[in-house]
Amino acid sequence: MNYHGRQTGLQTALGQNRLDALLVTHLPNVRYLCGFTGSAGVLLVTETSRVFFSDGRYAIQARAEVRGARVVISRKGLLVAVGEWIASHRRELPGGKRPALGIESEHLTVAECRRLAALAPSVRLRPARPLVEQARMVKESEEIERIREAAVLGASLFQTALGAIRPGVKETEVAGRMEYAARKAGAEGMSFPTIIASGERSALPHGRASGGAVPADGFVVCDFGVILAGYCSDRTRTVYVGRPSREARRVYEAVREAQQAGLESVRPGRSVGEVDSAARKLLQKQGLAKYFTHSTGHGVGLEIHEAPRIAAGQTDLLKPGMVITVEPGVYVPGQWGVRIEDLAVVTEQGCEVLAPAGKDLIAV
Amino acid sequence: MNYHGRQTGLQTALGQNRLDALLVTHLPNVRYLCGFTGSAGVLLVTETSRVFFSDGRYAIQARAEVRGARVVISRKGLLVAVGEWIASHRRELPGGKRPALGIESEHLTVAECRRLAALAPSVRLRPARPLVEQARMVKESEEIERIREAAVLGASLFQTALGAIRPGVKETEVAGRMEYAARKAGAEGMSFPTIIASGERSALPHGRASGGAVPADGFVVCDFGVILAGYCSDRTRTVYVGRPSREARRVYEAVREAQQAGLESVRPGRSVGEVDSAARKLLQKQGLAKYFTHSTGHGVGLEIHEAPRIAAGQTDLLKPGMVITVEPGVYVPGQWGVRIEDLAVVTEQGCEVLAPAGKDLIAV
Repeated sequence: MNYHGRQTGLQTALGQNRLDALLVTHLPNVRYLCGFTGSAGVLLVTETSRVFFSDGRYAIQARAEVRGARVVISRKGLLVAVGEWIASHRRELPGGKRPALGIESEHLTVAECRRLAALAPSVRLRPARPLVEQARMVKESEEIERIREAAVLGASLFQTALGAIRPGVKETEVAGRMEYAARKAGAEGMSFPTIIASGERSALPHGRASGGAVPADGFVVCDFGVILAGYCSDRTRTVYVGRPSREARRVYEAVREAQQAGLESVRPGRSVGEVDSAARKLLQKQGLAKYFTHSTGHGVGLEIHEAPRIAAGQTDLLKPGMVITVEPGVYVPGQWGVRIEDLAVVTEQGCEVLAPAGKDLIAV
Repeated sequence: MNYHGRQTGLQTALGQNRLDALLVTHLPNVRYLCGFTGSAGVLLVTETSRVFFSDGRYAIQARAEVRGARVVISRKGLLVAVGEWIASHRRELPGGKRPALGIESEHLTVAECRRLAALAPSVRLRPARPLVEQARMVKESEEIERIREAAVLGASLFQTALGAIRPGVKETEVAGRMEYAARKAGAEGMSFPTIIASGERSALPHGRASGGAVPADGFVVCDFGVILAGYCSDRTRTVYVGRPSREARRVYEAVREAQQAGLESVRPGRSVGEVDSAARKLLQKQGLAKYFTHSTGHGVGLEIHEAPRIAAGQTDLLKPGMVITVEPGVYVPGQWGVRIEDLAVVTEQGCEVLAPAGKDLIAV
């Protein structure tokens, strides 16, 4: 991973954003910039220095992992340590009388911000643009390879699900088997709570596996992903238990076509909103658009949901190296739901689906 | 669950805190107050009304789950919906010209706060004390029973771990077997990433299961918990692979005695800081206190880490119905680590360990 390039890129962006420093508190951003994987750490980046702060639990791990930054282990709390460092390193923060310290306002809480303001009275706190999130949108080739490996492992879990889904089996049992298979294959964990939503529950877009049993007839939405070497995968397949009716087949085909249209609309220079409308348009034709109640996708990387959002009205332009999901769905309350999702990397010409696999309706 | 009592209790607290309303945005607090279990919801509580806001993904689920509050499903984002409701319901927010709307400043981000301020210009935003967290500290009997059930299920996973731990097995394989057993027994998931830290890694207090193999000789720290019916469990046991040396036995015994002393110090009216010092004192006697680098415990309930913190200098007083962990540890960098943890409910006389089990050193 090019930690050096990421850090110098951020340092260049500081000046462009009239910041003398940025306090990086969002852990995936901290990890992206310096490699720390623990649960307590902040990174202070000025134009000339990078200092990482953690606590006693991470003394060993921080020294082993952190790249390109001094490591400070504090017993007093991370924000206290940041305040003390600022007080004693005024030279490294130019910016006249009161240097501007950027904060990650989408992540720092109001209470943390107030504490920081009291602990570092010599600086002005300034909500910064999401500089690190923007850099993270376009992946390095090593990141794409990691996401690909996660996607391949993630995709293999659908076979496990197919082997487990049958009438009467608990949704949690299906999810549990998938998660165990993921662990055995080396996953650090799942990238989100596994969704196994069967029968009427398939109409819940976020229907985590429940203790309920898979009914004898109906759709089962399986939405699942793993974390492998820090990077996430995300995929959805929907199967039918029993014999699908004509209407069930029609709905499934409509979602499949919408998902394909979404994928085919992906190319550099297009806006993410156009991908959303490409998928939505197909469902409109079938009179199903009102049942597509969420956005079409999102970026994936160190986090399962990251920039860009693939949604109506969003104007981010697609660039080679972005990794996004395309996942339209149809949810008819009290009846059923269908969602199909792939993970794709934007290429020079269009996009490449990671771990591609068939999407014909499977009845079990 | 006594949602009515929780809501009226909060409404009473509003006046005492000079607030005309509280905007509850922290999801575990939302769930505690009205039962919603999804990932997008906020609850606005005024002295006379309770309104729950969610988005289209949760239209069905919100109506099925939410107790004691009107449900508003918004297409425009939750804070926009809150702003619109405030603008059109000024009568339900008395408080003179500019009513005071409390925010959960430990959870609301700086950016959300700024958006809310722009969307609801007619109210003053006021960081509120953690009113809901304080109420959540003392559990209802139904909550204690749920935590007990989670603790019993969680405890059973240690047998799974014992069956899996042997020289050469991957830490993730041990964790995976435990997680699968949890799922089969109905767990919604693990309450935190399972820690299986073997050999030198046992000196990492937060050493999540890695792809590394358990060595032929050394401690293995196993820290694990489940979520069952929304409530968390948390337990740590440390085993030895191979034949423990005299020094290994001494360290283990010291931690065991410290943990026992911590448990025995728990009683209503004591401060949580006294529990921390009771455990720490025992390690001091053995010259091991400097290797005990974290606090002694924390509250457990809907969240794996909640109030109170059992740490030096903390002055919260223990009350019957609180559920806390007692988990001292010793971590010698580059060498080994030992931690022992139980979950206990504070009773009228002292405390009751949930799912009690032996703590003699087990060599495998």
